[in-house]
Amino acid sequence: MTQAFLDEATIATLDTPVVVVDLDRVEARIAGMAAVMRERGVALRPHAKTHKSIELARRQLAAGAVGLTVATLGEAEVFAETGIEDLFVAYPLIADGPKAGRLRALAERSRLAVGADSIEGLRSVATAVRGSATPPEIMIEVDVGGHRTGVPPDAVGRLGRQAVDLGLTIRGVFTHGGHSYAGRSERMAAAEDEMRELGAAAASLRAVGIDPAVVSAGSTPTAELSAGGPITEERPGTYVFGDRQQAFLADRPLDDTALLVASTVVSHGAANGFVVDAGAKILAKDLAPYLAGHGTIVGCPEAVIERVNDHHGVVSLPDGVARPAIGDVVWIAPNHVCPVVNLVDELVVARDGRIVDRWPVDARGRNA
Amino acid sequence: MTQAFLDEATIATLDTPVVVVDLDRVEARIAGMAAVMRERGVALRPHAKTHKSIELARRQLAAGAVGLTVATLGEAEVFAETGIEDLFVAYPLIADGPKAGRLRALAERSRLAVGADSIEGLRSVATAVRGSATPPEIMIEVDVGGHRTGVPPDAVGRLGRQAVDLGLTIRGVFTHGGHSYAGRSERMAAAEDEMRELGAAAASLRAVGIDPAVVSAGSTPTAELSAGGPITEERPGTYVFGDRQQAFLADRPLDDTALLVASTVVSHGAANGFVVDAGAKILAKDLAPYLAGHGTIVGCPEAVIERVNDHHGVVSLPDGVARPAIGDVVWIAPNHVCPVVNLVDELVVARDGRIVDRWPVDARGRNA
Repeated sequence: MTQAFLDEATIATLDTPVVVVDLDRVEARIAGMAAVMRERGVALRPHAKTHKSIELARRQLAAGAVGLTVATLGEAEVFAETGIEDLFVAYPLIADGPKAGRLRALAERSRLAVGADSIEGLRSVATAVRGSATPPEIMIEVDVGGHRTGVPPDAVGRLGRQAVDLGLTIRGVFTHGGHSYAGRSERMAAAEDEMRELGAAAASLRAVGIDPAVVSAGSTPTAELSAGGPITEERPGTYVFGDRQQAFLADRPLDDTALLVASTVVSHGAANGFVVDAGAKILAKDLAPYLAGHGTIVGCPEAVIERVNDHHGVVSLPDGVARPAIGDVVWIAPNHVCPVVNLVDELVVARDGRIVDRWPVDARGRNA
Repeated sequence: MTQAFLDEATIATLDTPVVVVDLDRVEARIAGMAAVMRERGVALRPHAKTHKSIELARRQLAAGAVGLTVATLGEAEVFAETGIEDLFVAYPLIADGPKAGRLRALAERSRLAVGADSIEGLRSVATAVRGSATPPEIMIEVDVGGHRTGVPPDAVGRLGRQAVDLGLTIRGVFTHGGHSYAGRSERMAAAEDEMRELGAAAASLRAVGIDPAVVSAGSTPTAELSAGGPITEERPGTYVFGDRQQAFLADRPLDDTALLVASTVVSHGAANGFVVDAGAKILAKDLAPYLAGHGTIVGCPEAVIERVNDHHGVVSLPDGVARPAIGDVVWIAPNHVCPVVNLVDELVVARDGRIVDRWPVDARGRNA
């Protein structure tokens, strides 16, 4: 089992299962995406739901990111409290109940935008911030093919007018081309969908007299594919670490994946395989139609993590492949990194085979 | 949308998505399982990985549980620190690295047993506690058909002898009939497997001169089915709340399910359906072959939570069924409750429609 992030002596000090980040790789990823976006003249606003880490957010901003994207008010609050002021809640916010006061307070101390895809959402925001000197700006969400949230491009103008009539200010339009995760060819198609449909959405706004300052797309699989279109901002999240899914979609090896789960072989009980102490409570249960099992054991691509229970990963091996010994530590690239980070309180940070830091997952569990 | 745990006025104060526990239901569940086990003369040692809560552990002990089952040393430490002393780590522990000292310290302040299914595991424990005046006892894990961890029943005697030769003390044998989760008929068969194979495992120990004090089975689907056999202890976990999977397996309605996720309808964007703010970061991604989608919206069984992303649950409805309004709160019974609790920091506790308490998820994230 090769390609560990830590040397043997350090591995012996680990308390597995544990999430380890390779600092060189994460720095290369942050710098790489920043360089691509700078070259294209597109603003980079990384989605912080992947890392939920103040330390990593600061590094992304230092590399040139214009601000952060978050999924919830709770995540925004964590970053705002630490002085990161330019925040976009890329979610159709319903600012009812406690969220009304939280939104107002957050908008007072940050440069805030929030998503909307309905008149009900707009009304809740307008009510929450009525009379505020620092209301958030509105980004209208567009459905470009993911069929989750968002309105069709030609409905954007009408919703924009309704926002203005409610006293709100439109910053622009955004989407998440989530159908880019369906496979390699879908990834290319989704990037084209983002450009075409966001262009139509921006035109729909202009037709009602609203000029969108920002046209924002966001997904790691498409972020590097949408040059030359109407997009002014990209919001990739997963790129900061990468994962097995991203490597497959980009047709790249796992050599630059910056986060792995170190896990101990605890049993040879499973017929023709072995069991590791990384289960669903650290790998999560994300599957992809084009990937076998629940992660890749680096250096042992023939192993399949057939199933994960809370604290067990059950691994099969083809005939003739030797099992690792009980007590061995294996390194697992998870299918989808975002839920993995959300399952731990800290990231162990490695460089040159040693542990050099531990970063708290500051916004872990901030679901609301 | 009916069957909410809270009244309308209280729902308006919720910050969704949020996990809510109904106190009457949870008390009835704790009392009910305790009564069944008392009547059978079987010791109840609930698995605390489901709730990870000191408050709930104390209630289970007050109802007659002999101690707790946990999955990790970290969970055991949380409960030991609060004075709960009888703990069984039902996992094939490899007590290497930091776990050696942790195991030794834990055994000094609690009545501890740990699982083993290999000579390597036994050796690691023996080395960790060598010379200790208070070593943990050993429970040998038996594979009764789940094909995860554990050894075949006829291999238990040999492993037991090896443990004794290493200076360790055998308390008994244990299993988890995890194949009980495969379906209703498999549930009955798994209960029979537990009884038969644990009986054989106990005989295997006796044949080498070791008398098992404890013969322990554990899974909520089988816990109430194994009367009259060799089992002296049951370790169900999920029964404390129930969930959609358990209700199906027991062929019962969700009327006594004690934990629901309150979630807000945030969008009508999805074609012919709606989107809620409960996604994979609160519902997790557990699926069962006999259940459609990622949970049941109580009072609306025709709705299917088709997919969950981190912060989105995408719900479909059949033609002719009216969508709830944007801003409405719906109540979701998750497929599998254990990972849900592990995704939040606290449980909101309801009784008679009001919030009466908030319990921290004390052992959340204690993966190691």
